[in-house]
Amino acid sequence: MQRYTTDQLLGIVRKMFSKAGCSTRDADTVADMLVAAELRGIPSHGLMRVKDYIGLWQKGRMNMNPNVKIVHQTPSTATVDADLSPGMIAGKFAMQLAIEKAEQVGSGWVAVRNSNHFGIAGYYTMMAARKDMIGFAMTNANALVAPTFSLDRMLGTNPIAFSIPGNEEPIFTADFATTPIARGKLELMEKQGKASPHGFVQDKNGVSSTDPSVLRDGGAILPLGGDFEHASHKGFCMGAMVDILSAILSGANFGPFVPPQVAYLDPKPGAPGEGLGHFFGAIRIDGFRPANEVKEYMDLWIRTFRKANTSAEAERVVIPGEPEIAKELDYRKNGIPVLPKVWEELVATAVSIGLTEDDLNN
Amino acid sequence: MQRYTTDQLLGIVRKMFSKAGCSTRDADTVADMLVAAELRGIPSHGLMRVKDYIGLWQKGRMNMNPNVKIVHQTPSTATVDADLSPGMIAGKFAMQLAIEKAEQVGSGWVAVRNSNHFGIAGYYTMMAARKDMIGFAMTNANALVAPTFSLDRMLGTNPIAFSIPGNEEPIFTADFATTPIARGKLELMEKQGKASPHGFVQDKNGVSSTDPSVLRDGGAILPLGGDFEHASHKGFCMGAMVDILSAILSGANFGPFVPPQVAYLDPKPGAPGEGLGHFFGAIRIDGFRPANEVKEYMDLWIRTFRKANTSAEAERVVIPGEPEIAKELDYRKNGIPVLPKVWEELVATAVSIGLTEDDLNN
Repeated sequence: MQRYTTDQLLGIVRKMFSKAGCSTRDADTVADMLVAAELRGIPSHGLMRVKDYIGLWQKGRMNMNPNVKIVHQTPSTATVDADLSPGMIAGKFAMQLAIEKAEQVGSGWVAVRNSNHFGIAGYYTMMAARKDMIGFAMTNANALVAPTFSLDRMLGTNPIAFSIPGNEEPIFTADFATTPIARGKLELMEKQGKASPHGFVQDKNGVSSTDPSVLRDGGAILPLGGDFEHASHKGFCMGAMVDILSAILSGANFGPFVPPQVAYLDPKPGAPGEGLGHFFGAIRIDGFRPANEVKEYMDLWIRTFRKANTSAEAERVVIPGEPEIAKELDYRKNGIPVLPKVWEELVATAVSIGLTEDDLNN
Repeated sequence: MQRYTTDQLLGIVRKMFSKAGCSTRDADTVADMLVAAELRGIPSHGLMRVKDYIGLWQKGRMNMNPNVKIVHQTPSTATVDADLSPGMIAGKFAMQLAIEKAEQVGSGWVAVRNSNHFGIAGYYTMMAARKDMIGFAMTNANALVAPTFSLDRMLGTNPIAFSIPGNEEPIFTADFATTPIARGKLELMEKQGKASPHGFVQDKNGVSSTDPSVLRDGGAILPLGGDFEHASHKGFCMGAMVDILSAILSGANFGPFVPPQVAYLDPKPGAPGEGLGHFFGAIRIDGFRPANEVKEYMDLWIRTFRKANTSAEAERVVIPGEPEIAKELDYRKNGIPVLPKVWEELVATAVSIGLTEDDLNN
């Protein structure tokens, strides 16, 4: 697979979003976020999204020159209207606002409405962790998931992320969808003719299935847990909490009304809110006791868990965030691999907005 | 099964904790919380805990006359030292502090150390919801759970609760352990000679088992998800987040060092923190937009999810908090059923501290 340097990919994405109308600063933000996903080994939120974003813009569902603004606030809370920006433009604005509020009064909480796909949630929480804060980030997403007992898709895969800094240890970052698996990975299983494990999907009659293609025929992804016997109602609770914090506070669309983030699927008519929603939080760790005490204690937590005895399956317990850090070190040194199909789509998308492959390579 | 009125049970618990040294106000708090668990149909956190609490007090591990105090704070954050109180005494103090901070600056976040078992997490979050706030509550607990790939028990069942008020609809309350099942329910399965579903426990070699008795021989409960294939690493992330927020910020014990909440199990020697830890949050819903808009939108959320089509297993999707509200209505009208064995233990415990069964009944 062809590999590209971080700077090459940043330059390409910047060029495309500038061409689409983004300011230099906003194009930098979008590029930084999409390439961060590639670097962390989450390509489903990386370059392959460029085509979708540009497609939404071409349909008037994404605004490349948005007026992102605060519409309501208290010393520790705020609501931001994203003006249909690419989610990361409003998302970065909102997380910076949460961090500023935390600097002033100890914590900051910002709900965002009228937004779009915001990239990887862990990007925002690491912004907070680098300022000696705990970061929280979550977003709702278009409905693919059936709550326990439901036949209908009512919730997105609704990810949640959480970061806390260590002292000598790197930032702890948990960043996970509230379903057992992402849509993209099920698509891959289907293309490869593989069965999916029990508890991942159900068919249109609500019967658990191992055939990922049921999603094309009225089926749904299941919440974390799988079925009621295995406590999928707890996965439902987590997905619901993310949806409520992201949409009910801000006035974004919730659950089944969240607009799809691809141009070939239309939003549901009669949606009660505005765009999709996010929720961000930052808490100063020295709001509880001296920062160095918290960070040294976090080091001890990480080292204690790393020392747990493990089964033959793994050499040690995986500390959340560690695999992504290792991936980023590798890719920064050896280049970021890009699938030929993703590269072709990227070039075709560039051409569709008046750029050439040469423009991308120079 | 014998049924008792709410007032009877409140009176009994009050009398016992007063006898053990609690102030009238603190005995009221403990009674209110344990009986609330019974009313909501969560007897594992109700009267059967009285014996454990009194046992911990008799061993000097619980302080019935504590000096609960704020040890550090900012306008929106604080750390509280529970002085080894029954967890609900420090817990109620901490949640009230979070609510006061939210009234002042929009949100309040309080970490608690040096505490004990705090009852049902949803009790605290509903305190916030009744003030038109979102409530968050969580606690760590003694280690029973093996992270993905671990052979060792490193985390408790670490519950998390979340409440938000509706307008005409009742308060939405999600309150769940970050494991597929609670320890108490596995014990019941074992006593009844039943197998537990796949993905609930593993044996001492880390092999998934359906025999709940493996917990007596080096086994462990699994995180929500079950195994790695079914995304138990996401359940691990949730349990870890609860542990970190509850212990790392406050300086309580974390993970394997959290003291057991029964007198017959000794705390681990060399524990690095103080007691067990909790974390509470309150956010004013009008910190984002007018409260009535948020509450009416929450009603729409609930009604939308209630209208989802369901499989034959259930008439409708269960909205988190609804089953507990129905249970409470029933029990307040018809009395709270108490297992003969729980009643016998309660009487024996009362006798052990110098009361008689007559004292309890009058």
